[in-house]
Amino acid sequence: MTGREPAVEKRTLPLPEPGLGDNRSPEKRLRDSLGNFYSEPVFIPLETARKLPKVLKQGDFDVDAVAVFGECGWNVAEVSPSGTLSGIYGMAIDLGSTSVVFYLADLETGETVRTLSLENPQREHGEDILDRILFAGRGGLSTLQKEAVDLINKAVTELTEKEGISADSIYYCTVAGNTTMCHFLLALDPSHICREPYIPAVNKFDLLRPAELGIRMHPQGLIYVLPNVGSYFGGDLLAGILASGMFQEEKISMLVDVGTNAEVVLGNKDWLVACAGAAGPALEGGILSCGMRAQEGAVERIKISPDNFSVRYETIGGTPPRGLCGSAIIDLLAEMFRAGLVDPTGKLMPDKAPERFRKIDEEWAFVVADEDETGTGRPVYITQSDIKNLIRSKGAMYTILNVVIQSVGITFQDIDNFYVAGAFGNYIDPENAITIGMLPDVALETFKGLGNSAGMGAVKVLLDRNARKELDEICERITYLEMNVRGDFMNQLTGALFLPHTDLSRFPTVAKRLNLQ
Amino acid sequence: MTGREPAVEKRTLPLPEPGLGDNRSPEKRLRDSLGNFYSEPVFIPLETARKLPKVLKQGDFDVDAVAVFGECGWNVAEVSPSGTLSGIYGMAIDLGSTSVVFYLADLETGETVRTLSLENPQREHGEDILDRILFAGRGGLSTLQKEAVDLINKAVTELTEKEGISADSIYYCTVAGNTTMCHFLLALDPSHICREPYIPAVNKFDLLRPAELGIRMHPQGLIYVLPNVGSYFGGDLLAGILASGMFQEEKISMLVDVGTNAEVVLGNKDWLVACAGAAGPALEGGILSCGMRAQEGAVERIKISPDNFSVRYETIGGTPPRGLCGSAIIDLLAEMFRAGLVDPTGKLMPDKAPERFRKIDEEWAFVVADEDETGTGRPVYITQSDIKNLIRSKGAMYTILNVVIQSVGITFQDIDNFYVAGAFGNYIDPENAITIGMLPDVALETFKGLGNSAGMGAVKVLLDRNARKELDEICERITYLEMNVRGDFMNQLTGALFLPHTDLSRFPTVAKRLNLQ
Repeated sequence: MTGREPAVEKRTLPLPEPGLGDNRSPEKRLRDSLGNFYSEPVFIPLETARKLPKVLKQGDFDVDAVAVFGECGWNVAEVSPSGTLSGIYGMAIDLGSTSVVFYLADLETGETVRTLSLENPQREHGEDILDRILFAGRGGLSTLQKEAVDLINKAVTELTEKEGISADSIYYCTVAGNTTMCHFLLALDPSHICREPYIPAVNKFDLLRPAELGIRMHPQGLIYVLPNVGSYFGGDLLAGILASGMFQEEKISMLVDVGTNAEVVLGNKDWLVACAGAAGPALEGGILSCGMRAQEGAVERIKISPDNFSVRYETIGGTPPRGLCGSAIIDLLAEMFRAGLVDPTGKLMPDKAPERFRKIDEEWAFVVADEDETGTGRPVYITQSDIKNLIRSKGAMYTILNVVIQSVGITFQDIDNFYVAGAFGNYIDPENAITIGMLPDVALETFKGLGNSAGMGAVKVLLDRNARKELDEICERITYLEMNVRGDFMNQLTGALFLPHTDLSRFPTVAKRLNLQ
Repeated sequence: MTGREPAVEKRTLPLPEPGLGDNRSPEKRLRDSLGNFYSEPVFIPLETARKLPKVLKQGDFDVDAVAVFGECGWNVAEVSPSGTLSGIYGMAIDLGSTSVVFYLADLETGETVRTLSLENPQREHGEDILDRILFAGRGGLSTLQKEAVDLINKAVTELTEKEGISADSIYYCTVAGNTTMCHFLLALDPSHICREPYIPAVNKFDLLRPAELGIRMHPQGLIYVLPNVGSYFGGDLLAGILASGMFQEEKISMLVDVGTNAEVVLGNKDWLVACAGAAGPALEGGILSCGMRAQEGAVERIKISPDNFSVRYETIGGTPPRGLCGSAIIDLLAEMFRAGLVDPTGKLMPDKAPERFRKIDEEWAFVVADEDETGTGRPVYITQSDIKNLIRSKGAMYTILNVVIQSVGITFQDIDNFYVAGAFGNYIDPENAITIGMLPDVALETFKGLGNSAGMGAVKVLLDRNARKELDEICERITYLEMNVRGDFMNQLTGALFLPHTDLSRFPTVAKRLNLQ
């Protein structure tokens, strides 16, 4: 970790003892001593000042001090006689609408020592985040906030107990979430996120004290909520930009968060263009007949034999299948397309392999797993309507990417790195995503799964005191395209509602491989 | 008030409405708008951010914002639809050990609109501040703090009710007090102020939020406690330096706070030397047989006829005399010395005017007022022991001034302004103070009473956002002389235990006028 500039530092300071000609107070003594290390101002909160004289006495003027990097200097959050202070920790939070992931990091080593994923209890007010905004508008905002805070405190309890440390050892907490989730956490009015003028209450959140939210951690610690650049471009995405490093590179990168909302950033160290638009929930499996989240029993990989149309699949945990998660859905559509089980318009071709199709609720469905092999007693399948939905979502996704590319006058071929983030970004098979025309037809090695980029970015902020400034700079540099109001989006979408696209010259590799014309 | 740079500002801001190409949040909109006025960062507390969207809607994007100058930028403490916000106020506090004086200032005009003086309830734990420190050491610190805070809140209630404003209109509070009083207010351990190593817990207090102390004012406002440069050189004195302006002048000034502790500052814009030492309580009247504080019935002026030794006096309020306050004691000793009723060693000369002397408790006393003319039914007088005490105090005072002068290698004649501060600084007759050898024999026009310099300085800080920085610079520049440990003090004191001094060449004017040799 050479060269790292931590946001929280523990220093053992041998302070000079008072004497003739040195009548400085303990406070001044400590401030001067830290001033040797820091060019920024040093602040000593009242609580620290109160305990300092006794600490100096007990430690014989050798003191451990914990300094947290604030808005404009270092806050000395804790002092203790030298050698008596346990470790210093930080917690990064990926505040997702479905799951909230917590990372406990040892701030001295920079290592993440524990992670924990908890279900977001706000889901009871709506799986769809818009339902939660409506709930907030009906007086539920404080409930949503309390649920978020309680969840964080639950995680603090669990992580610190398992690690055998005290909650007071957590001095810094960073939160990356989408704009709405951050508004819930801070009890900020989210109502205009989803209606005119489609703006959040806050873009940039100032540093918070734990008491302002009621978070269990060191009371003199700080909480940082990553900023957003709009209603549909939140701190989770900014965390991804930070985690990818694309904002510092000469080469051009595209970062895509695949989900109900498609969020895209394009750029390099000189410029950044961002856009977000509704791709629909189909890509996440949400609204499909047999869609499910990526949990035990979810099919995550699918292969279809082009010869006998037999289906091979893998499930999470290796248990009998219960449904299809996002990555499997993309695999499935691509494989069906390759095998000719669906035509370029998305129409199912049941005659091609009658043994794999059946009518369910009066429409054709392709069966991935029969009822006798699933974990639910019901078959796992995809219907004609599902596929229509899916094509609309993948088409919207591609169109958003294309609009962004066109807005800066480049082509997909100019992109050196194509980062795929989001809940299942790491699990998407890029070749299959290209085959269905969801992602552009660029060289496969261009694609890089970013993993949980929101969490990674939040951890980066936790460890690097320059990251907040970098995020501010990113926010200032980003040009945000309002997708919802761009006429060319609707025009372009039409062509993208085919597999892979009406304009096959955009997908030469797919056309060549599948012999399309 | 041209050119004033206020620490709190109210601004009416017409904010641009959101629209195509401007999707900034209310927070960003406000921050950007204030950024046009301020080069420092603008911080928007969560509470402000929470109410901002509604305020913008109600005010049709015309908003009144109150910004308070914090450690490193402006905190937007309040927002309100344009035209709906009442005035902005500040409160300066002279936190004295006997009386606490409050100044309510209109921060828009810079005028002090009301003042209030309340007795310090901590006196019940000891008139002498050392007794209160001992009380704090016996577990009384939180009681002392609560009493200070309750007193401040009482003043807030009284001042705001009389002015017809809300406590939330107070956005800034400044406190000037001696080091011990400030430690009580902040519940900081004062024990080492009065014992080894004779240092306070804190020299520089960081800005505080009202909730940290429980002060009734705007919750997003700030509290500033003036710093100190040592146990016996507190924020009250620094306020005096600030109020006098001596730290900005070419000419050399001396500032003396006359009281139980003699506190002295000498210097100009290039250098400052300070010193404090115990002068004893006699100068304030405290321990004298008939000493009293400057309240109704206290004799404040005394003249003795050199012919018939008749005594003329003036009392505060013009009521029958009840005792002698500080200024009268200095007058009395000077007049007695001039009239030959006391010799240069301080020995009373009862033979000179037998009708004015009587034996009280077996020692000689000079009677200022007979029992039949006083308000107590007992005579007002000064005893031989009183005079010995008084001479020790005035001798200590002079010696402290002299040690400071000598430390920088100048003489009293080099001083252009001699500021007398403190409880009765304004009331001392400089000529009489010189006659008894308490103040140096310099031209009378050199002396300038500063009035309540602590309060004046606290008000200055309230109105001027640069004052805190000036105080920090003053603290850094001051060289503090440790009087208690300087051997030359004791050597020099001996000569000062005479009226006016054993070395008459130091008091040429007195020697000439009184024909001394």
